[in-house]
Amino acid sequence: MIRAGIVGGTGYTGVELLRLLALHPEVQLEIITSRGEAGTRVCDLFPNLRGHIDLVFTEPDAARLAACDLVFFATPNGIAMSMARELLDKGVRIVDLAADFRLRDPQVWQQWYGIEHACPELLEEAVYGLPEVNRATIAAARLVANPGCYPTAVQLGFLPLLEAGGVNSETLVADCKSGVSGAGRKASVGALLAEASENFKAYGVAGHRHLPEIRQGLEQATATRIGLTFVPHLTPMVRGIHATLYARVEDSDLDLQALFEARYRDEPFVDVLPAGSHPETRSVKGANQCRLAVHRAPGEPVVVVLSVIDNLVKGAAGQAIQNMNIMFGLDERAGLNTIGLLP
Amino acid sequence: MIRAGIVGGTGYTGVELLRLLALHPEVQLEIITSRGEAGTRVCDLFPNLRGHIDLVFTEPDAARLAACDLVFFATPNGIAMSMARELLDKGVRIVDLAADFRLRDPQVWQQWYGIEHACPELLEEAVYGLPEVNRATIAAARLVANPGCYPTAVQLGFLPLLEAGGVNSETLVADCKSGVSGAGRKASVGALLAEASENFKAYGVAGHRHLPEIRQGLEQATATRIGLTFVPHLTPMVRGIHATLYARVEDSDLDLQALFEARYRDEPFVDVLPAGSHPETRSVKGANQCRLAVHRAPGEPVVVVLSVIDNLVKGAAGQAIQNMNIMFGLDERAGLNTIGLLP
Amino acid sequence: MIRAGIVGGTGYTGVELLRLLALHPEVQLEIITSRGEAGTRVCDLFPNLRGHIDLVFTEPDAARLAACDLVFFATPNGIAMSMARELLDKGVRIVDLAADFRLRDPQVWQQWYGIEHACPELLEEAVYGLPEVNRATIAAARLVANPGCYPTAVQLGFLPLLEAGGVNSETLVADCKSGVSGAGRKASVGALLAEASENFKAYGVAGHRHLPEIRQGLEQATATRIGLTFVPHLTPMVRGIHATLYARVEDSDLDLQALFEARYRDEPFVDVLPAGSHPETRSVKGANQCRLAVHRAPGEPVVVVLSVIDNLVKGAAGQAIQNMNIMFGLDERAGLNTIGLLP
Amino acid sequence: MIRAGIVGGTGYTGVELLRLLALHPEVQLEIITSRGEAGTRVCDLFPNLRGHIDLVFTEPDAARLAACDLVFFATPNGIAMSMARELLDKGVRIVDLAADFRLRDPQVWQQWYGIEHACPELLEEAVYGLPEVNRATIAAARLVANPGCYPTAVQLGFLPLLEAGGVNSETLVADCKSGVSGAGRKASVGALLAEASENFKAYGVAGHRHLPEIRQGLEQATATRIGLTFVPHLTPMVRGIHATLYARVEDSDLDLQALFEARYRDEPFVDVLPAGSHPETRSVKGANQCRLAVHRAPGEPVVVVLSVIDNLVKGAAGQAIQNMNIMFGLDERAGLNTIGLLP
Repeated sequence: MIRAGIVGGTGYTGVELLRLLALHPEVQLEIITSRGEAGTRVCDLFPNLRGHIDLVFTEPDAARLAACDLVFFATPNGIAMSMARELLDKGVRIVDLAADFRLRDPQVWQQWYGIEHACPELLEEAVYGLPEVNRATIAAARLVANPGCYPTAVQLGFLPLLEAGGVNSETLVADCKSGVSGAGRKASVGALLAEASENFKAYGVAGHRHLPEIRQGLEQATATRIGLTFVPHLTPMVRGIHATLYARVEDSDLDLQALFEARYRDEPFVDVLPAGSHPETRSVKGANQCRLAVHRAPGEPVVVVLSVIDNLVKGAAGQAIQNMNIMFGLDERAGLNTIGLLP
Repeated sequence: MIRAGIVGGTGYTGVELLRLLALHPEVQLEIITSRGEAGTRVCDLFPNLRGHIDLVFTEPDAARLAACDLVFFATPNGIAMSMARELLDKGVRIVDLAADFRLRDPQVWQQWYGIEHACPELLEEAVYGLPEVNRATIAAARLVANPGCYPTAVQLGFLPLLEAGGVNSETLVADCKSGVSGAGRKASVGALLAEASENFKAYGVAGHRHLPEIRQGLEQATATRIGLTFVPHLTPMVRGIHATLYARVEDSDLDLQALFEARYRDEPFVDVLPAGSHPETRSVKGANQCRLAVHRAPGEPVVVVLSVIDNLVKGAAGQAIQNMNIMFGLDERAGLNTIGLLP
Repeated sequence: MIRAGIVGGTGYTGVELLRLLALHPEVQLEIITSRGEAGTRVCDLFPNLRGHIDLVFTEPDAARLAACDLVFFATPNGIAMSMARELLDKGVRIVDLAADFRLRDPQVWQQWYGIEHACPELLEEAVYGLPEVNRATIAAARLVANPGCYPTAVQLGFLPLLEAGGVNSETLVADCKSGVSGAGRKASVGALLAEASENFKAYGVAGHRHLPEIRQGLEQATATRIGLTFVPHLTPMVRGIHATLYARVEDSDLDLQALFEARYRDEPFVDVLPAGSHPETRSVKGANQCRLAVHRAPGEPVVVVLSVIDNLVKGAAGQAIQNMNIMFGLDERAGLNTIGLLP
Repeated sequence: MIRAGIVGGTGYTGVELLRLLALHPEVQLEIITSRGEAGTRVCDLFPNLRGHIDLVFTEPDAARLAACDLVFFATPNGIAMSMARELLDKGVRIVDLAADFRLRDPQVWQQWYGIEHACPELLEEAVYGLPEVNRATIAAARLVANPGCYPTAVQLGFLPLLEAGGVNSETLVADCKSGVSGAGRKASVGALLAEASENFKAYGVAGHRHLPEIRQGLEQATATRIGLTFVPHLTPMVRGIHATLYARVEDSDLDLQALFEARYRDEPFVDVLPAGSHPETRSVKGANQCRLAVHRAPGEPVVVVLSVIDNLVKGAAGQAIQNMNIMFGLDERAGLNTIGLLP
C-alpha cells in the first residue's frame, strides 16, 4: 500500500482526490492538511465522504508528511515550491496539482504568476505529468507537475496533428469552455449561481496562465514554434471542459480519423470517437477520460478537433492519480475505473 | 457470477443499471433489450459506457432472457406484468423497477394506473423491495417490486417515527421535490431545458400514483391508518429527491435523534446526519444512499424530517441491485460502493 | 416627477430597483449610494443598465438624500433604522426593503436580528407594506416596511383562508423554495454555482427570521393565534419563490376557488389561476405578480395553496415601487407593467 | 396603430413576439394562428401573458390575415414561402422569422434546407433584415427576411473589421455558443433538461444552415470572398448567444476599439463595450441588444471579437419588431426599450 498525503484538501481538486483515493485499492490515505479547517472532520466539510473517509484536517507538518510515500499538493500556486525540497530530501515523492512546476523557465513563471520561483533548481528535475507524452519519465520521477485542466484538453487534441505535421503550427486557435468548478471552491461574487448561471462569457482574453503552459507543451512535443490564440470561457455548469481546436491544413491527404485513432490506440484514458461525432462533456463527468473527435470544416482547409474532459478528473485529480500509478509501477488504471455519470 | 438481463434499457433507470452493473464484481450482463433501439450498440446511445459495455440492444426474447439468473425490468408500467409469469416459470428471478407489482390490491392498481392487472395472482407473491423493511422476505423472493423514488425517500423518513409511535399518523405531510430525470428519457415539451430550467412548480396535487404506494407501505409497517398529504414538485436539476416530511408530535419526550440513529444503525445505505443538519441532494448524487436529518419545528409540536436520495440510484437502479445482492446472498454492498459526486 | 434615491444599490434588490425605476414614467432617479463602490459608474457594475442609467455610486450623504421625495433602502438589516429619523424629519419618505421596520415589537426584533433596535419609537408609525392588506395606511405613510420575500408569498396564499375562517389556524405548514438570488449578491461559498447548482436542500429549519414576520402578519389580519411551521429551501435557480401551503379544513363546504377569486378580484398584482392549475415561478420572472392556485388534497381534509412570486420583484423591488406608487397617489401599476420572461 | 398578425405563435419566437408586442405602443395584435392549438387561449399556453393577451389561437386563414398591415411568420422553415405571395398581393407586409427568404439563391436554399423554394421570384425582392446594414432598403420593403440568431451575432461582430479591411477575410473563425431555446419549443430527447443541463457540446460541425447565410451577408457587405469556419455549440442555459470571432490582422496599425465605436456610434441596439471588456449574455437577456468587445490576442496577429445577443430578441423577435418599426416609419426603439434581466 502506498502511504499518501494531501496538502490543502479543502478545494475541489482536494475533495476529488479524496473521492478517488478512498476507493483506490493500493493507497492508504494517511494525512490531509488544511490551515483553515484544521480540527474539522473531512466528512463534515464534504458529506458525500461520510462512511468513506474518517480523517480530520490537520495543520501541515513536514515531519508527518515525511512519513508518506507520496504527497499530493492540492494547494494554491506558490505553496508546493516552498515545501518540495524538504519532502524530496526525505524521500517523499510529489505530485503537484498547482502550477509551481509546470513551466520550465523560472522567468516565464514569474512573469505569469507574479512571484519569484522559490526553487528554480527543481524545475529541471520536475516532469510534466501528461502521461500520453511523458509516461517513461513520469515512471522515474520524484516530482511531477500535474498539467492544468485547459492544457490537458488542448494538448491531447492538438498533439496528433502537430506530431504528424500537415497543419500550420503558427495559426492555431483554441476556443475553450469550462464549468465553474475550475474557478475553485472560494467565495467570489462572479462565481455565484446568481451570477454565473444562465450566462456565458469569455474571460482572460488578454492573457491566461495556461497559454504559456500549452505553448511549452506543444513546442516540446513538436520542436517547432507554436502560434496559438487561446480564449477561455465560463459556461454555466459545474464540471467539464470542452476545447474546440482549429488548425489550418497544409497536407490535404491527411487521414485525420486514422491519425487520431493510431495515436491513442493504446491509451487507457483517451478515447477517439467515430468520425462525425460530437463528444459531450457529460460523457466524462466524474471519469478520468478525454474524449476526442476530429472534423474537417465544410468548404475550408481547416481541421476542427473537439476535446472534452472533466476538469476535476482528467484535468486534475484523476490525472494526478494516473501519474501516481505510473510512478509506483501500479496498473495505470488502478482506482480510476469509473464511468461518467450520465445523465 | 450472476447472469443478468435488462429488459428496456434505453431509459434513465436502464443506463444507470448499466453504469452500476458494469463494475459489479459478481454480475455478468448477458442481454439488454429494447424494441426501439434493437441493433444499436449500447455505447453509441450512451457514450459514457464506451470501453465498459460492449453489448448491443436486442429485441426482447423470452428464450434468451430465460438463460439469465435474474432479469431487471426497466420498462414502462405494464410490461413486466405481461412477461413475469413466463420467466418465473423458467426459474428466472425478477426485479421490476416499474410499478407493476408495488400495490398489493389489483383494484387499487387499476384505479391509479388505468389498466387491468395482467397477473393479479403474482401480487401476493411479489415482495416490496425496501430492504430496510423487508430484507428477510427479499432474500427469499423470486419477484421483487422495486419501490418508487418518492416512496423510498418518504418511507425511510417516516418509518422511525411511525414505528415508535408518538406522532399523529393521520395528519402527515410529505412535500417532495424531484430533479427532472424522474420524468424519464422521453421527448416532452415540459421537460425541455428551456421549460424546466429556471423554474419551480408543483404537479399532480390532485393525486399522484406514489400516494397509494407510500400509504400502503406505511400502513403495513405500522398497522394503523395513515392520513397523508403528498405534493410532488419539479426542481431544475437532473438528479435528486428531497422529501420534507411533517408530523405532529403527541409524545413530547421523544428523543428524535436517538430514535433515528437506533433505527438505522446497521443499515449500510441509510445515513442519519448529526442533529441540526440539512442534507443536500448532491451528497448522494450517483450513490446508493439515503441521508436523513430530523428536526423539531421552532415553537410548534411538529417533527420535520429531511430525506434525500438520488432518484436514479437509491430511488431506482441502486436499490434494484441492492435487492439483487440480497436475493443472491451476496454482500449487500457489492457493486454499490460509490461516493456521491460533489461538486 | 418623484425625485427618488437609493441607499445601498449594489445588491440584487438595488439593481432590480434600478431596472424598474429606469423605465418608470413618474420617477427621476437622483442619487444612488454605496460605500464600497463610490465613484464607480452604475452601469460598469451592472452592464445591463448601459444606456439606461448614467449615475455614479456616491457615498451616502444625508444632505443630498434630503433633496429626494423618497428614499429606498436596499441595504443590509440595521442601516435604515440608523438614518430614518433624520430623513423623515427632513420630509423625505422612506421605503425600507430590509427588515428594520417589519416587526412591531422591538424585543422580537432584537431576538431574531441580534441587535438592539435603533429607533423603536418609529416602529409604531411604520406601515407594513403589503398593499393587499394595508393599501389605505400605505397611502398615508411616511415610512413603509417592505415585506420579506417569503412573507409576501406565504401571506398572500394563506390570507383568503384565514380571513374567511374554516381552516385550522394553529396547524399551518409553509414549505417554501427560493432561488439563490434571495441570498444576495455577496461572496459566499454556499451560494457558488458549483455548490448550489444540481443541488436541493433545506436551511434554517431551527428558525428563520421570516417566521415571526409571517406570524405577525397573519395574526394581525385574523386576530387569532397562528401556529405555523415554516421550512425554507434553496432551489438551483436564480429567481423565484414557490410556497406550498398546507392548512387543515374545518368547514368542508368552503368553495375554495370562489373564495380566492373574490379575495383578489380587484388586485392588480395577484392572479388566481383556474382550478387545477400549478403555477410556475417562471411565469412571474421579472414581473410584479403573485400567482396562486388552490387545491384540495386527495382524500384528506387539507387545503394546498401554491403561491409563486419573483423574490426580487413582488418579493422586493417591485413591491417597493408598488408601495411608492400608492404613497404618492400614482397609478399603482406605473412602471410595473412588465411581463414574465418565459422561457 | 399597426394591425399585426402572427402566424405560428406557439414556439419561442412566437411567445417572445407576444411578450414584446403586448407592450408596444403602436401595435394592435389582431390575430395569432396555430394549427395545433386552435381554440386554446394564448395565456393558457403561456401563463406569463395572463392579463396582457386575450387572444385565442385560430387556424391560419388568409382572409383574416389579409386584414392586417403586417404579418409575422414565426413558423418552421417552408411555411412563409407558401403564403407570402397571397398576402403581399393583398397589401400585407411580411416579416419572416424563419429562413425562407434569407438566402438569395434558390439553389443554395434547396441545398441547405432540402426542399425546393416555392417562390424564388420573391427572393430578389426580399430584404435581409439586418438594420445595421440594410436600414434604408428595409424601410421600403414589403417582405423582410429576419436574420438567424447566429448570423446576427456573427455579422455584427465581423462587419467593422471586414468593411475597414486590414484583416484576412479568408481565414475567419466563428466559434458560437447558444442557449437551448434556439432549438425551439418542440419535444426532443436531446433538449431535455436531463440531457442538456450540466453538459456542453458542439453540433453541426459538418455543416450548419447558418453558414451560407453568414457568408452571403459578409460577402455582400464587403464584396470579397469570405472563408469562414463556423462551429455552433449548445450551452446549458435557456437564452443567449455568445460568438467568439477570430480574424488574422494584416494591418497592425488598426485602432480596433475606435473602429468598432465609430461603426456603431448611431446604432440604438449595438453597444460597443470599453476596451478590455468581456460581454456577458445575461446583460442582454430579454433585451434587443448586441454587446460587443474587441481584443487583440496576446502575442499573435489575431483579433478576437466577443459578441452577445439574446437569441430570442435581437436574434429573432426583437429584431423582427425593429424591422417592423423601420418599415412603418416608427421610432426604431418603439416597444423595444427593455433592460436585460440581471441577475
